[in-house]
Amino acid sequence: MNAETISIGNELLFGDICDTHAQTLGRFLSSHGFVHARHTNVRDDVEEIAQAIREALARVNTLICVGGLGPTHDDLTREGIALALNEEIVNDPGVEHELKARYAARNRQWNPLLEKMTMRPKSALAILNPVGSAPALAIAIDDKCLIALPGPKEEFESLLFGRISQLLASRRPSHIVTRILRVVGVPESNLEIRLGDLMKSQNPTVAPYVGKMEVRLRVTASGASNEVAERLAGETVEAICDLLGDDVFSTSDQDLAEVVVSLLKHQKKTLGVGESCTGGMLGARITSVPGSSDVFEGGFITYSNEMKAREVSVARYDLSKFGAVSDPVARQMAEGVRRVLNVDFGIGITGIAGPDGGTPEKPVGLVYIALASEEGTEVQELRLSGDRDLIRYRATQLSLDLLRRRLLS
Amino acid sequence: MNAETISIGNELLFGDICDTHAQTLGRFLSSHGFVHARHTNVRDDVEEIAQAIREALARVNTLICVGGLGPTHDDLTREGIALALNEEIVNDPGVEHELKARYAARNRQWNPLLEKMTMRPKSALAILNPVGSAPALAIAIDDKCLIALPGPKEEFESLLFGRISQLLASRRPSHIVTRILRVVGVPESNLEIRLGDLMKSQNPTVAPYVGKMEVRLRVTASGASNEVAERLAGETVEAICDLLGDDVFSTSDQDLAEVVVSLLKHQKKTLGVGESCTGGMLGARITSVPGSSDVFEGGFITYSNEMKAREVSVARYDLSKFGAVSDPVARQMAEGVRRVLNVDFGIGITGIAGPDGGTPEKPVGLVYIALASEEGTEVQELRLSGDRDLIRYRATQLSLDLLRRRLLS
Repeated sequence: MNAETISIGNELLFGDICDTHAQTLGRFLSSHGFVHARHTNVRDDVEEIAQAIREALARVNTLICVGGLGPTHDDLTREGIALALNEEIVNDPGVEHELKARYAARNRQWNPLLEKMTMRPKSALAILNPVGSAPALAIAIDDKCLIALPGPKEEFESLLFGRISQLLASRRPSHIVTRILRVVGVPESNLEIRLGDLMKSQNPTVAPYVGKMEVRLRVTASGASNEVAERLAGETVEAICDLLGDDVFSTSDQDLAEVVVSLLKHQKKTLGVGESCTGGMLGARITSVPGSSDVFEGGFITYSNEMKAREVSVARYDLSKFGAVSDPVARQMAEGVRRVLNVDFGIGITGIAGPDGGTPEKPVGLVYIALASEEGTEVQELRLSGDRDLIRYRATQLSLDLLRRRLLS
Repeated sequence: MNAETISIGNELLFGDICDTHAQTLGRFLSSHGFVHARHTNVRDDVEEIAQAIREALARVNTLICVGGLGPTHDDLTREGIALALNEEIVNDPGVEHELKARYAARNRQWNPLLEKMTMRPKSALAILNPVGSAPALAIAIDDKCLIALPGPKEEFESLLFGRISQLLASRRPSHIVTRILRVVGVPESNLEIRLGDLMKSQNPTVAPYVGKMEVRLRVTASGASNEVAERLAGETVEAICDLLGDDVFSTSDQDLAEVVVSLLKHQKKTLGVGESCTGGMLGARITSVPGSSDVFEGGFITYSNEMKAREVSVARYDLSKFGAVSDPVARQMAEGVRRVLNVDFGIGITGIAGPDGGTPEKPVGLVYIALASEEGTEVQELRLSGDRDLIRYRATQLSLDLLRRRLLS
């Protein structure tokens, strides 16, 4: 069954913020068995909102709108819906009572501007917002369903994954199961060759998307029941894993840092990092995983040569002979981190992230990554492309992968 | 003059990737004096692409489409345009010649699939792609203009900011100047009160957008010439700065880390960091600024208590008496970093980022940030909301702001 979505707000169209809700809605609808057939951004304009709603409801039976439900004068979604459906806007006494009670409980002053959030198009059901003030709206029009959600991320997600998910469950058509595999170290074109006919399968479908130094493979199966769809998806996931082996780092859409932390936990190993060009980005990625403190001791942001020499014992002679961006320095950083922090694995990263600082011998994008363990130290020379932050991210990605493959071997 | 945009691709609607091109197009159109009136995402379906193009061209005179110009079977934008305009698709000998020459020069095999990229709707001008294979297309239909760009980010941006920018310059209506101010430390509602009537101005307009622990104020002025628009925008920017003072950290859309690095450079001061819950994120933000090595010595990711004690000399007694997340520990981290690295400023961050690890006394979101300098050490206790990464980001933002205000005082 097809569904459409509309994001409302000048800030989206003028490019002040990115419409990430569109992606969230896409994933949400797919996981609920809907085909997300079209998404539209419109401005804060009653006529344009109404027009977009009318057009969408002429094409599909399920429409979700986001934004424009707040208290200010440019929040016009209520008015747009009322115009599209040719309805009046009325006060909802239940919502007014609840909002006033919440304000009173927090000793906050009720503001006449807030009255706006107690209003709804006459046929709408107002759904209280668990993490904010503006209620969501749900309207049934014959066999069609129109939902409007507030725009702030936490409120939007809380309502979408909560009450709206329940509400749409009854409209679910066939059962669809999606699995995301993530692959590192294989270019997309190469991947298509290795996967061969699997890429042409109709059910499940397999679609590749290129990320930052990884490829995501989206497996989508549909079936008469959830069990059938699960089984189909599972078989294809297994077939892909057989073909790609260790290049698949997750079959459940985990970030590479999450996979590495989980492997370290299982093997009861500890990790420390020494970062130069990445400046803490590797540590930030690892510590973004809850519970990483079990395995991550910490690290050194050895941005200056002095810090490299003093904190992780890189030989000053090598720093001046080979330069800070070199195989011996990366090696000594990894080994120094491992020794100083007394951890099982030490990672060292040093490179030229640009945009300046490159030379013909050492161009922007040249990065050395090193992994020290009791088995010895491995150094890789990388030639990365992209802007400063992409080069840095790619260096963290390949460092994590170097450790992952070591942990698997 | 209104313009619309269309992004084409299943991967956008199914939520596999975020449609960041929509934001880029929004900024591009605004800066070229167009009002971005609507953006639409459609699937890889000839009929749906054609339908969306027809609808948009009925509303506006300028339409930019992105995606679906590659060589594979799901790249259908050429066909969609041809269907919408009722035209045939023809081979472009100039494009074919150029692409074959490029392949030959790189010793790469010409592949029959690539023929598709030498085709264009009959009335289209093919614009060669400087960083990839798929050409862009530009079509004039009476006074209307339809542009189609390839989807890969580098190709899209290279063509948009290059040839397409030139092409649209001739269609520019009034002159529009946009300035972005960034503000930290003031809630949005408070900001509106402090700015008063400025928020209601019609030319320039002033629009606030809430970011992660900051507010962006977008000032948009239009005028008969670029000079007039520049002057109007400049006057409003000055008026805002008078009202908000040091709470404005940039009048040119710079990131807070960029502003701090620039202040440090001007004052010839150096910085080091000690990070616990942020795990390197502060260092990563600072080092994302090119040239930060002039002022940033490095830092310690003191994730474990042992590292806090050993590397930056936090007293073990205080770690056990007050806990790792406490005022004295943040203070000693900042002071330890400053002393060990021999820098002018030391920053220490320790907190509970969640989702686990909170207690009634020390809930998730409790973060201590400390700044040590020759004037002494200042510690702030923060109560931050959001998920793990948002709490961490907010802690880095307020640490940078603490240093910025010290540098301004």
